[in-house]
Amino acid sequence: MAARQRGVARKIVIWARRPDVRLKLREQSWCDAALDTPEAAVKEASLVVLAAPVEKIISLAEEIAPYLRPGTIVTDVGSVKGDLCRRCHAFMPQGTHFVGAHPMAGSQKTGWENGSADLFANRMCFVTPMPGVDAKAVEAAVDFWHEIGSEVMTLSPDQHDEIVAHISHLPQAIATSLCTFLAGKNVMWRNYAGGGLRDTTRIGASDATMWVEIFQQNRDEVLRALRQFQDELQGMYSAIANRDWLEVRARLERGKAYRDGFRP
Amino acid sequence: MAARQRGVARKIVIWARRPDVRLKLREQSWCDAALDTPEAAVKEASLVVLAAPVEKIISLAEEIAPYLRPGTIVTDVGSVKGDLCRRCHAFMPQGTHFVGAHPMAGSQKTGWENGSADLFANRMCFVTPMPGVDAKAVEAAVDFWHEIGSEVMTLSPDQHDEIVAHISHLPQAIATSLCTFLAGKNVMWRNYAGGGLRDTTRIGASDATMWVEIFQQNRDEVLRALRQFQDELQGMYSAIANRDWLEVRARLERGKAYRDGFRP
Repeated sequence: MAARQRGVARKIVIWARRPDVRLKLREQSWCDAALDTPEAAVKEASLVVLAAPVEKIISLAEEIAPYLRPGTIVTDVGSVKGDLCRRCHAFMPQGTHFVGAHPMAGSQKTGWENGSADLFANRMCFVTPMPGVDAKAVEAAVDFWHEIGSEVMTLSPDQHDEIVAHISHLPQAIATSLCTFLAGKNVMWRNYAGGGLRDTTRIGASDATMWVEIFQQNRDEVLRALRQFQDELQGMYSAIANRDWLEVRARLERGKAYRDGFRP
Repeated sequence: MAARQRGVARKIVIWARRPDVRLKLREQSWCDAALDTPEAAVKEASLVVLAAPVEKIISLAEEIAPYLRPGTIVTDVGSVKGDLCRRCHAFMPQGTHFVGAHPMAGSQKTGWENGSADLFANRMCFVTPMPGVDAKAVEAAVDFWHEIGSEVMTLSPDQHDEIVAHISHLPQAIATSLCTFLAGKNVMWRNYAGGGLRDTTRIGASDATMWVEIFQQNRDEVLRALRQFQDELQGMYSAIANRDWLEVRARLERGKAYRDGFRP
């Protein structure tokens, strides 16, 4: 939708797993064709976007690889990049290029009906090329994600996984744990929740299937971030337990300075 | 402001600590008088609202007690209630009544300029009478908080402190710790923050002075809640570390069910 509205693609060809979805997509004005196999859909493409759960992206990359034209660039939307990029990169035939991406867009809702041409507008998109990937292919992938509206940041797949472990996966583990903890105390208390609890727990309502896969894929980085966060929380616990109010104040002020520095 | 707009009070008399604030308050249409001492302000009152930090509320209650008319009800806005209610209750002369309250309203901003007649509308207000307080006095305090717009919940001061330790103070300790942890990693990462991190950390920007006092006042309950939350988080850590994906999924689903049950 975004590519059509912004005039980024001459022809948009889709493959979707479910036949009923392919039927519906054929009626969409932003879609030129919805073909019955991944192989048929990629045959004439200069750019392929793999949009699926992480494991499925990897198997799709392997499946389509023999059918890609020379020069074709393959990108994706997976939330964890290290293993995915190494494997997809290895599948690519000589002269074709895998340039992974992770657009930080979307919501807890799934399915094409919940997409929109504005989905990527002003959202961050990480582009994560493997070392040694053709610079022009990287540039073309960056241009694509930029032209459909994202703000693009290029970094290595492993750097990406370290960063999202901290700014996305750790907050999810915390929000989920706060929800399960309070669910085990007294569920009625949630009726008294102010804005603080509401915001702190919001992502606790995210899709479980998606998050199990993310924790599987980024297990090592998530565990490292969680372990270190537990030490930080224990520091707060100790300061309060020891009545070290200067230390408690210092932590509150350091936290506030950090949060006040967020972009509006 | 809310009492005037909703016609709850015949006469509104204020005392404020700073002389320049008293001068400005005299010009406000919702305020009938701004007197120079707490004693003078309470002399003819049938209802007194103590709005200040917790320690200051306690010393104000002691200061005004000898000047209260028989039948006067004193309420307050302190965020922690156990110690405050026990002490204020003890200060009250025979025939006057302390009925503590905690309106869950306001923001990180302080000062009368940031108030509004709608501040309490549809927000929860806990009313926390000590055991044995006159039932009509409790009813009058409940009516007051209800009439200025709040949804009122009556419970004991200690029950209140246990609940807010979980639904307000624990989320603050977590949000602050997530902020200080990420501040110590790489502050630039906050520029890539999606809505998840943004929401989870929002209350990390709260006022440090207010929160030091809350953690001091509710130290025991906060420590108990924090210790138990740490066990819950360790459960999530272990499930991921042990690759027990069924357990990880169960936690994500339990958390989602809890969060989906929040009032809209």
